[in-house]
Parts: sequence; C-alpha cells; structure tokens
Amino acid sequence: MKYTEMKKEDLLSLKNSLQNEYEKIKNLKLSLDMSRGKPGREQLDLSYDVLKVFNGGETCISDSGIDCRNYGVLDGIPECKQLFSEILEVPPENIIIGGSSSLNLMFDFICQCMVSGIGGCAPWKDQGNVKFICNVPGYDRHFGIAEYFGIEMISVPMTPNGPDVEKIKELVKDSSVKGIFCVPKYSNPDGVTYSDDTVESLAALKPAAKDFRVIWDNAYCVHDLTDTPDRLMNIFEACKKYGSEDYFVEFTSTSKISFPGAGISAIAASNNNIADIKKRMSSQTIGFDKLNQLRHVRYYKNADGIRAHMKKHAAIIAPKFRIVLDALESEIAPLGIGEWIKPNGGYFISYNTAVGSAKRIGELCKDAGLVLTTVGATYPYGIDPQDRNIRIAPTFPSDDDLKKAVEIFCLCAKISAVESLL
Amino acid sequence: MKYTEMKKEDLLSLKNSLQNEYEKIKNLKLSLDMSRGKPGREQLDLSYDVLKVFNGGETCISDSGIDCRNYGVLDGIPECKQLFSEILEVPPENIIIGGSSSLNLMFDFICQCMVSGIGGCAPWKDQGNVKFICNVPGYDRHFGIAEYFGIEMISVPMTPNGPDVEKIKELVKDSSVKGIFCVPKYSNPDGVTYSDDTVESLAALKPAAKDFRVIWDNAYCVHDLTDTPDRLMNIFEACKKYGSEDYFVEFTSTSKISFPGAGISAIAASNNNIADIKKRMSSQTIGFDKLNQLRHVRYYKNADGIRAHMKKHAAIIAPKFRIVLDALESEIAPLGIGEWIKPNGGYFISYNTAVGSAKRIGELCKDAGLVLTTVGATYPYGIDPQDRNIRIAPTFPSDDDLKKAVEIFCLCAKISAVESLL
Repeated sequence: MKYTEMKKEDLLSLKNSLQNEYEKIKNLKLSLDMSRGKPGREQLDLSYDVLKVFNGGETCISDSGIDCRNYGVLDGIPECKQLFSEILEVPPENIIIGGSSSLNLMFDFICQCMVSGIGGCAPWKDQGNVKFICNVPGYDRHFGIAEYFGIEMISVPMTPNGPDVEKIKELVKDSSVKGIFCVPKYSNPDGVTYSDDTVESLAALKPAAKDFRVIWDNAYCVHDLTDTPDRLMNIFEACKKYGSEDYFVEFTSTSKISFPGAGISAIAASNNNIADIKKRMSSQTIGFDKLNQLRHVRYYKNADGIRAHMKKHAAIIAPKFRIVLDALESEIAPLGIGEWIKPNGGYFISYNTAVGSAKRIGELCKDAGLVLTTVGATYPYGIDPQDRNIRIAPTFPSDDDLKKAVEIFCLCAKISAVESLL
Repeated sequence: MKYTEMKKEDLLSLKNSLQNEYEKIKNLKLSLDMSRGKPGREQLDLSYDVLKVFNGGETCISDSGIDCRNYGVLDGIPECKQLFSEILEVPPENIIIGGSSSLNLMFDFICQCMVSGIGGCAPWKDQGNVKFICNVPGYDRHFGIAEYFGIEMISVPMTPNGPDVEKIKELVKDSSVKGIFCVPKYSNPDGVTYSDDTVESLAALKPAAKDFRVIWDNAYCVHDLTDTPDRLMNIFEACKKYGSEDYFVEFTSTSKISFPGAGISAIAASNNNIADIKKRMSSQTIGFDKLNQLRHVRYYKNADGIRAHMKKHAAIIAPKFRIVLDALESEIAPLGIGEWIKPNGGYFISYNTAVGSAKRIGELCKDAGLVLTTVGATYPYGIDPQDRNIRIAPTFPSDDDLKKAVEIFCLCAKISAVESLL
C-alpha cells in the first residue's frame, strides 16, 4: 500500500515498528559502505596479470620502435592511441594519451582555457564571469573543478534521454556560458545514455561563445552490465554535419578497466583542440608514463581484448546491481516513496525520494552504520535544492555486505517517508 | 699556443687546414647527438627489474595497508614518502608524491599560484606583472613554464658558488618578483652545487612579496659521478633560522634513477605549502599511480638502495664525462678559446666560448652531422645575449660515438674561434 494512502494512525503504528527495527540494526554496530564508485577487490584481481607483462624480460621497445623507458613522445605511443581510437571511434591522430587520471586531464584542459584561452580566443580569466552548465544530478568532482576556477554553475535537471537540450539551447545564447559537463554514457549517477536525438541536438548547438567547450566525460564507454548494452552515438560523427567538432572534448580512462588511479587516460578531440592541448602540454611535461601505456597495450591488445575483459567485470558487478534493484523493487516500489532508473551499465543507481528527505535518509543510514555518497554531492556546491537525490554505489561491498546495506537503506527510506507524512 | 697570440697569416693557414679536416668529416655523413640530457640504453637496462616486482604474484597491498590498485591516498603511500624523506632529509609529512614528471609538478604549482594564489595572497594573475629570476645559463623547460604563464624573466648570471645572491637581494625588493628557478645541486647546465654560504643567503632573503616562491628543482639530488660527491646544504634546515621555509618548494624525481618519464616524482615543502598544494590537488585528481610508487619502494627499499643504484649509473656515465673533458683539456685548453666547469655530478658540461660564437659552433656541428642542445636554449627566450654558452650532454651516445662527437665539437670550436679572430 502506498504510504500516501495510509491513515494517520496506521502511519504512527508503522513508524513505531520501523523504529524498533532501526534500533535493532543500530545495535549490530555494522560498518557498511555504499558510497564509493570504485571497483571491488575481486574486480581488481582480474587485472593482476597486467603487472606481469615484463615477466619474461620482454622488450620495452614498442612495435613502433619507441624505447618506452626513456623521455619522449609527448602525446602517447601509437599503439596506445590505436587502442583508444578503436574504443572511441576517432582517428589515432585525434587522441592524446595522459597519465593515470582523466579527471586530471579535464582539470588541466579547463585550466588552459582559463589561463591562456582556447580556439584563439582570450583567456577565460580575462572575459569576466565564466559559467558552465551542470546536468544534475551529476558528478561532484566535475563541480569541484568548476568551484576551484570560480566558474559559476548553472544546474539543468537531466531528462530520461540525457540533458535538457531545449533549456541548454537558451542558456548558450549567453557568451559567458563556456561549457557543459556531460557523462554521456551510463551517466553518473543516473545511468542514462544520451539518446541519438540528444547527441544530434548537442552537436547542432550554436553557442554564442566561440570558445565554448563541452567536457564529454566518457568514463563508462565500455562499462556495460548486460549483453544488450546502450549504444552512444559518436559525438564527433554527429558534429560533422554542423562543423561543430571544436565544441566537444572527450575524456576517458582505464580506471574501471585495469586499475583505478593506476591505469591510463585519454583525450579525443578535434584537430584544433588537439593542437592547442599539445601546445600547452609541451610546456607542462615531457610526456606521460609510456611503460604503463605499453603494459596496457601488451595485455589488452585491442578493443576486443578490452571488451572481453569488461565482460568479466560485468559478471562480478551485475549481480550487485541486481541485489540493490531487487530490494528496491520489493521493499520500496509498492510504497510509492521513491524512484530509480535501472541502469544498463556504469557504476551507480540514482535514487530519488518521492516522499521523504534525502538528507534525512543519509543521516539515518550513517547512524545505523551505513555510509552513503554524501547527500547533495550530486549537485553543485553540495546542495540538492529538492533534497531528493541519493547516489547508490553497489560495486565495492561484498554481496553479503551489500544485501545488509540495501536492507538498511530501504528501512531508512521508509522511516524518512513516514516522518515526512506525519 | 693561444689563438689570440697567433699572427694573421698563421691564423689563415690554420683556418685552411681546419676547413680541410671539416670537409673530410662532413663527407663521412655522420649522425651524432650530444644534445639529450637523457640516460643511455645501458643505464635504462639497470632498472629493468623494477618492472618485475609483481612477478611472483606479490600483493598490491602496501605494508601500510593500502590497496595500491584502487582509488585513494591523494599525496602518496607512506612508504614512498618515507623513501623521499630519507633522500631529501625532510619529514614524510612534508612530502607529496606525484606522477612520473617533476616538471609537471612545477608547472602545476606555478599554475596554482597564478590562478588561485599562494600563502593566502591574491592570485598572481590579479597582481599585474609577475617576474621570475632566472639563473643563467639554466634549464630551458623552466623558462618555458614562465613563458607559458607570461611571467617576465630576469636573467642573473650564475657564479661558481651558485646564484649571484647580491643581485638577487636587490631584485626581490620588487614585490612583483615572485620567484627564482634553481637547480641547486649539479645545476643544469653548469654542474655547480650551491655553496653553503649561498644556500644560507638564499634562506635569509627578505623578499617584498609575501607570496614569493623559489622553485628548488633538486633534479640531481643523488646523481653523483664520483666517490667524493658535492654536498648541498638542506634548504629547509637553513630556513629554520629565518622562518623562511614557505619561500622554498623543492622538487625531484626518479627520472634519471629508474626511468625517464616513467618513474615517480616528489615535492618537499613547508607545512603551509603542502596544505595549499594538497587543497588544489584535491580538485585536480584522485591521486597518482600508487602501483608505480609501490614498485619503486619494493625495488629500491630505501635511500641506501637508491644510492647503490646510482653508483651503477655513475660507473657507466663517469667515463663518458671523462671522454669529453679529456678531449676539451687536450684540444681546447691550450688554445684559450673556451672554458668549462668539471662537474662532480649531474648530466651536463657547460662550455663557454672565450673566442668564437656559440651559435656558429652549433651550425658547424649540425652541418657536420652532430646535433647539440639548441644554442641559446640555456637562456630565457632562447637568446644568449653573449652568444657564448653551449650545453654538452654526454650521457646518451655510446662511448665510440661520443669520442667522434667531441672530436667534431672541438674542431668546430676551433673554426669558429679562428673565424672570429680574422
């Protein structure tokens, strides 16, 4: 029965029984964590052999003839560009290989726009107020970059097909709007993959700012959970019709393929953007870790190798998503107190309260021994204006811990809903 | 006989015979390179086993209990901080571990000063003209960073004891002078180690700018060539007397210990600077490659392990320095046409013409098949005002190639000197 249809005395009675359950769980003094969008240990074990690539004394010279032990090759070894070229479906010359962090690549790119400008325009720092559109709920580390640079964030609620393109078309008429943060495939946290119409419409944008740059963070490009994965239209293909390829800079990494924070990352961008980025990089570094690039190329070999590896990841984490979704389906769905999307890939389930407070759920979980992603973190400045969204991260806990965790979550969601109604 | 003491007709005769030699060498169509401050292949072979650290399925969990395969630990694993703590003689809490490039750490630090300020002061970008003192001859990639950020460079010629502290004391009375580039041990290219007096005097500086920051690039901290290495006073020890530790930020890396561009790097700094840097880093990245940190810790173990490894490097490259210095001693010294310092460590020999043009020597070498470090590169904007300095890098060529290379160099130095006198 939906909570909103219950009589007051029944809600009071329910509250008592929920609180009894809650006290029991509190006394168990559990310590559980559903906050971390990070692979679990079993997943990390999948990649151990990446570290053994030089076991037999194999050469450090790439097939392309580069001694990967020494200085040189600013933008990455050809084999590594080829690998990402296959995954992202752009030519190798439009790829730059980075270090172990795509976030670092994004920060540094936005930094260069601020400090020295992009596309021949003046530095953003000299153009007055700079704004970015933030699709919400979204990724807190994107918002953190904007905060660091003093970029004003304009929240635009996501739709089931991706960003609200109609709103965005209006906003970009303002030339101080310099960019958008996007996670276009299995978006963080909603798990939505932008529809073809959405991608086309974004490619067709006519921003007032000539130095408009969309951060196309394709972090989950191969992170499918099922045999019928979402397919994301290639933004650069879409851009060809409009000549708008300079407006999009794509990022990805192997963090959730090989090792979080110890893999390799990549940028895919137009010829102009690649040239601008390389120019700045040539002042910043001599290059990134080519031995780690070689390690990944030797182990995974090509996009098929990557995809085969991802199936192993899916075999471990799809059941974890199942555990959470099944619990929500049986415990929450009948009560009409919350909504969520069932993602086809990625790392998160985005829960929105229909009745109840996300903040309150977070507090209750914390006191019961369950850590959730900081409530509000999925919004700029950590403030969810409607206090509805919670990002659930199922991948790190063991299956047993996860079952306990989602049980606690459901209980707290119920308590908060009942409190709101009384 | 000194060229300056020769009669005109003898110089003409000499010129002819030098040019005959030159034509012969030109016809050999050699291809030699004395420009690259990079380890040779034999040196890189020394570190191969760093790549085999996980051969036997060793754990990726550090002794400190960190799973180095996963996200976390922004500033580096404790064991790695401990390693650099021993080498640089600062407490581990004053160390941050970076990626594979110390240049990248320097660029990013100067960037944060420009963009968000340091030490509680306004961003440099909002303070009008920003200047840096450049000890010359110096390192072109330092100058490249300054150029990128539009920082005005003030050249101050080096002395045999290090920077010209008297000149620097005057210059820092200007609050727009925000920093100095220093390579304090086996400086690039002079090979000079700052004397204790110099380090003390720098520590005693009273800059007008409260946000004054010296880039203390200790790239060659353990890169001794002999059993009687230079000893550099610890700048932070020197600073204690004056309370000036915030003015110095130290950098280093294992590029010339393990692998250039594929090792690990580190910052050593005061508590205040470490806090400011970590704050910016927390917006920029989740952390650097902890597996590579663990690899280095497991292989080298401690500072003694590093020093033992460096002796192997010295065994390979000290003879190369000998080859160059012996040739200069026998071919150039008697002629009074050039000067050089005999370094006790580091990667370069700095040659200064007494008679002749550095540019001309560079051209002659190039046409004879020998590439030198771009002449002028050791000065800001690539312009050596006196056209005297050439940076010789002996480490990369084989001993045989090096012998040929320095022979060509001496010949070209002679030709340029004779041309100048006629």
